Amino acid sequence: LGKSETGLEGAMKKPRPTITLTTDFGLKDPFVAIMKGVIWSIEPGARLVDLTHDIERHHVEEALYTLLYAHHYFPARTIHVVVVDPGVGPGRRPLLVESERYLFVAPDNGVLSFLFDGKSQATVRVIEAARYFRTPVSQTFHGRDIFAPVAARLAGGVKPEAMGPEIADYTRLNIPQLLISEEGIRGEVIHVDRFGNLITNIHKRHLESLKAKGRRIVAESKGARFEGLYSCYAENMTDDPGMIINSFDLLEIFCFKGSAQEKTGLKRGSRVQISPALHSMD
Amino acid sequence: LGKSETGLEGAMKKPRPTITLTTDFGLKDPFVAIMKGVIWSIEPGARLVDLTHDIERHHVEEALYTLLYAHHYFPARTIHVVVVDPGVGPGRRPLLVESERYLFVAPDNGVLSFLFDGKSQATVRVIEAARYFRTPVSQTFHGRDIFAPVAARLAGGVKPEAMGPEIADYTRLNIPQLLISEEGIRGEVIHVDRFGNLITNIHKRHLESLKAKGRRIVAESKGARFEGLYSCYAENMTDDPGMIINSFDLLEIFCFKGSAQEKTGLKRGSRVQISPALHSMD
Amino acid sequence: LGKSETGLEGAMKKPRPTITLTTDFGLKDPFVAIMKGVIWSIEPGARLVDLTHDIERHHVEEALYTLLYAHHYFPARTIHVVVVDPGVGPGRRPLLVESERYLFVAPDNGVLSFLFDGKSQATVRVIEAARYFRTPVSQTFHGRDIFAPVAARLAGGVKPEAMGPEIADYTRLNIPQLLISEEGIRGEVIHVDRFGNLITNIHKRHLESLKAKGRRIVAESKGARFEGLYSCYAENMTDDPGMIINSFDLLEIFCFKGSAQEKTGLKRGSRVQISPALHSMD
Repeated sequence: LGKSETGLEGAMKKPRPTITLTTDFGLKDPFVAIMKGVIWSIEPGARLVDLTHDIERHHVEEALYTLLYAHHYFPARTIHVVVVDPGVGPGRRPLLVESERYLFVAPDNGVLSFLFDGKSQATVRVIEAARYFRTPVSQTFHGRDIFAPVAARLAGGVKPEAMGPEIADYTRLNIPQLLISEEGIRGEVIHVDRFGNLITNIHKRHLESLKAKGRRIVAESKGARFEGLYSCYAENMTDDPGMIINSFDLLEIFCFKGSAQEKTGLKRGSRVQISPALHSMD
Repeated sequence: LGKSETGLEGAMKKPRPTITLTTDFGLKDPFVAIMKGVIWSIEPGARLVDLTHDIERHHVEEALYTLLYAHHYFPARTIHVVVVDPGVGPGRRPLLVESERYLFVAPDNGVLSFLFDGKSQATVRVIEAARYFRTPVSQTFHGRDIFAPVAARLAGGVKPEAMGPEIADYTRLNIPQLLISEEGIRGEVIHVDRFGNLITNIHKRHLESLKAKGRRIVAESKGARFEGLYSCYAENMTDDPGMIINSFDLLEIFCFKGSAQEKTGLKRGSRVQISPALHSMD
Repeated sequence: LGKSETGLEGAMKKPRPTITLTTDFGLKDPFVAIMKGVIWSIEPGARLVDLTHDIERHHVEEALYTLLYAHHYFPARTIHVVVVDPGVGPGRRPLLVESERYLFVAPDNGVLSFLFDGKSQATVRVIEAARYFRTPVSQTFHGRDIFAPVAARLAGGVKPEAMGPEIADYTRLNIPQLLISEEGIRGEVIHVDRFGNLITNIHKRHLESLKAKGRRIVAESKGARFEGLYSCYAENMTDDPGMIINSFDLLEIFCFKGSAQEKTGLKRGSRVQISPALHSMD
């Protein structure tokens, strides 16, 4: 800021920082609200968004996928806070990860592994600056005592390097990988949304590598079989589940006005095998 | 704004616009948060309120009643966004409706029909200004790609007329009408709230048209029968359901500290017949 | 504020007031959103936090414990609004309670009894200033018509004394007390959180009064028996429930990656008897 600017003008120009919260705390208990109280006590200007608090309890992988597909819709420099950790306690290090556009604060349990693929050039730090923690730090609620105040300090302008040194020995989670060949793709269901849609880890670009003509693909899973890609839900008004490339560019099995999950019995983790449709389909 | 005002002063005087969100997305998936991220990426000053995200999935009529009874409690120029639409896809037009005090953004599926009664003088536009959309527009998540960015632009000052032309051929939903005569009123249960209260579409003013003395009315529904109007819940501390004019001026069947729904078996859509009570009631 | 300050600078310096909301309204109905609309229509600068809206319906005591353990994490002068009241109606007085750091607005049904212990020097007022209410005041939704607008006015700078006179005859709830002797403590489960952790009303300082060596205590409840205190969840990776002092300094029975509630069958209100462990434990 230029010297001639008053503090007032500076305050107006500084955008309010955004902090998202992702936990498995639910909303029945006041845990999430307490984190917000701690953040606003430190940084009254922060804008807060609940990404979700209904991660299945202790399900680190579900939190990972939520962040992976949602984090980039937020303004640059948004601070994403993740608190899903069955192993909370003195042995768990808190991490601060800096990607090109965002900051992430989370326990070192692999929940940010999607940032550790080597491509994204993330800087990973262990948070050691205890002067920014609430004290005493409890052994059961690091969300309140470490993650919330650290996120608030970052929102207030404290630099990532003030939080702790870079490390390389952080935990990585094995994210299920696709088996891809010209003949087919084997992926799996990674999420079932509120509508019962079955979302797979098969991306649009993977399908393009298949030797299939346009939308002529077949999916098989646990004996069920689906043919062809629809371009919108309303295009398949039958009771039979269909496939679509969803708004996250992922292959999704849906059922118009119904639940594909109930219809098929498939669930998170179910394998899905994709092949080019036979020419007889014409 | 006068010429002499600086941009800074202008910014201070411009109230932060409010945007409400009503969807059937639930809060388990990050869909709602993603919409908020999109809005704040465009218009960082917007104030966001979740009207509800627990509309029964695809239940356009439930969303309609929620908006009808809740929209007018918000500041003037609030932008109400509704995304409940089983038929999302390329064939569905997005609408922008302007009433005297509010703006509404919703799919053209009738969910805003309560504004189309001729009395409210609403201006209905089809949103065609694709330059305000996220691109590419997906076929499954118009909330993120059309409704959120359009609402954010409106909050930022883009004029409704920049969004698209006025139309007259928008979809209207048939809202259940009352059958009213001097002898009685036939309405129905339109909502069951969290407490199990059965809320009908019978308004206080309809009851006043009955030839009943004060509170002497009788309701009948599926064999159940309720007599007399209480003026507050605590006035009927029995286990038997009673009737009351609720805080939205609608006739409601309640059960003190219990659930009228469980007690009576009535549900959304159940018919309710109101008659003046016989004089023998005295 | 000094005379020389402009209104603009004054506005910048005044921190945005925080209002928390605690109700049993749930989030399915638009009741909570309507309260927010009312607040923002009066005081656009207020920052709103949902403490929880999933208080078991009409469960005044659950709301009391939620406030007791959560209220002090918020910025000074936060206004805590509680609307849990089976007895809403003309006979129920609205209260404004002022503690050293906070304001509380709630029905006079005992929900704020934790402030009435004589130690906290709370000032209790009955809210009578009908000029600040929405009119007409309904008999079924004081949250919208009394509590929301009063909280908004307080946030906007109206002084507590303008709301009504001090009273001394407010309702007090009997909060379950501990039976404490050197030989043991009898408390009870006051909350079961989302993880199935059983939280008791036995505070760390109570345990220190026991003639027990360090962590050598035994808890008994309904035939179940737990020995020893763990210092973090991950220290007890067995299937058997263990005890811990939680982040609110309360004795908690937990089950690592499982639900202590399901495991033990204990629930809110279950008695818990604590004794020093026998020396044979060594």
